[in-house]
Amino acid sequence: MSRIVYLNGDYLPEEEAKISVFDRGFVMGDAVYEVTSVLGGKVLEFEGHMARLERSMNELEMHCDLTRDEWLAIHRELIARNGIDEGLVYLQVSRGNAGDRDFHYPPEGTPPTVVLYTQAKPNLADDPKAKVGIKVISLPDLRWHRRDIKTVQLLYPSMAKMAAEKAGKNDAWFVEGGYVTEGSSNNVYIVKGNKIVTRHLSEDILHGITRASLLKYAAEAQMEIEERPFTIEEAQGADEAFFTSASAFVMPVVEIDGVTLGAGSPGPVAARLREIYLDESRKSAV
Amino acid sequence: MSRIVYLNGDYLPEEEAKISVFDRGFVMGDAVYEVTSVLGGKVLEFEGHMARLERSMNELEMHCDLTRDEWLAIHRELIARNGIDEGLVYLQVSRGNAGDRDFHYPPEGTPPTVVLYTQAKPNLADDPKAKVGIKVISLPDLRWHRRDIKTVQLLYPSMAKMAAEKAGKNDAWFVEGGYVTEGSSNNVYIVKGNKIVTRHLSEDILHGITRASLLKYAAEAQMEIEERPFTIEEAQGADEAFFTSASAFVMPVVEIDGVTLGAGSPGPVAARLREIYLDESRKSAV
Repeated sequence: MSRIVYLNGDYLPEEEAKISVFDRGFVMGDAVYEVTSVLGGKVLEFEGHMARLERSMNELEMHCDLTRDEWLAIHRELIARNGIDEGLVYLQVSRGNAGDRDFHYPPEGTPPTVVLYTQAKPNLADDPKAKVGIKVISLPDLRWHRRDIKTVQLLYPSMAKMAAEKAGKNDAWFVEGGYVTEGSSNNVYIVKGNKIVTRHLSEDILHGITRASLLKYAAEAQMEIEERPFTIEEAQGADEAFFTSASAFVMPVVEIDGVTLGAGSPGPVAARLREIYLDESRKSAV
Repeated sequence: MSRIVYLNGDYLPEEEAKISVFDRGFVMGDAVYEVTSVLGGKVLEFEGHMARLERSMNELEMHCDLTRDEWLAIHRELIARNGIDEGLVYLQVSRGNAGDRDFHYPPEGTPPTVVLYTQAKPNLADDPKAKVGIKVISLPDLRWHRRDIKTVQLLYPSMAKMAAEKAGKNDAWFVEGGYVTEGSSNNVYIVKGNKIVTRHLSEDILHGITRASLLKYAAEAQMEIEERPFTIEEAQGADEAFFTSASAFVMPVVEIDGVTLGAGSPGPVAARLREIYLDESRKSAV
């Protein structure tokens, strides 16, 4: 049975889910997206992702008249139709098809292209990588400078993941002006003593939904949080390191540019935060 | 009659030219493109654009097995079928559809998505804007840092053109580290005395095909050329300014950030270079 995809109001077998070659998401990178995790058939952090989607569209003067209730109904319908227990829902809104390629935005009223689909990921919560941690390399951050807007201009993150793979590692951390910005598709953290250090929010990094929740849970657990940039060298000398993302939750990092962190295995802070995060986000799943 | 579009070997009415929602050009900005001008039904600068396309794909480890002869045959077929005398041919190659969204490149052998279409532009060569010149604003250059690769990650150039339009101007020039990089979709030049100044090639700017030809023609016409960065202030104090692009050829710029250049009308150097460029590229059109 084909996976069912949502496209502009229709639920279609994935082979039939097609868009125009004039779509601005295809010819201009003019599209935003969100990815939410599904655990036990329910969507995690739904409100957070919807708020960020709305913010991305506002920043780009992009319009879509679906309400949050309608978005949720589509998520639920796709989860049901595709029988997703653990997995992801991918959501993309492009500025649509103006009938021809033009740098200028299409006339007001041009409908956006709205696509959602699921990806089944059994054992999403029980990812074996979380038990051993991942290894990263550092790369210069060559992305555009509005990383707070979650656009589909993901070629450099894609190139970075391929470079990491070629180096025999799992992922890449980006460095700009001597400081770590974020991971190729995640926010990054180091732990020194009882203190968690993560870069402050700005246009330099994605405003992670998982990041916001994690910092809240960490504060509730009496951990000290410092929001400031850090260097690769500082990270290599930390007790622990980890990243957060909507699809990997809290993931320990045990090696950076060939330097093993601490004992080379996931530390207690990352493990505890992963547990808290999964517990809390399951509770608020919808 | 519908415009005919080329898509992966087929010539289709434009309404039927559709790609998968999983195409990496749509979900990752993982696609490169070229635009060539057509004058008198013939393609300008074909070899230059093909060489750059091949370079873009090489830099991204993207593969497409069409030969230059096959590319040319597609260009000619589209021009014939759509009756293009003056206009553009747009060509895009994406890394294709791996069957699902993944940051990692698809398995080797996954076919790229190849799309070409024409845009009729009567009076392309006789553009009235060339007679009065255009006005530009400057904006910070927020694009990614591999501008030498011609990818479809064009959201910021698109935003810049909209910002220029809102300001009542025609285009934007990008500034980074105090110096002009290039225009939102073109290479830029200033003229002081008999000297033409334009930024040197690097990963900071597109390696314009029109730029390369223009510099050759300018040298042949005994003009002095200096390839180095310049500031907005230097440009505002220049005798002339202009930009080059495949679709606008040589276009005079008469105002930068509200400051009128010289007499406020196109200068003799830009006008002469436009004429030479059009003559020469018509001669070598195929």
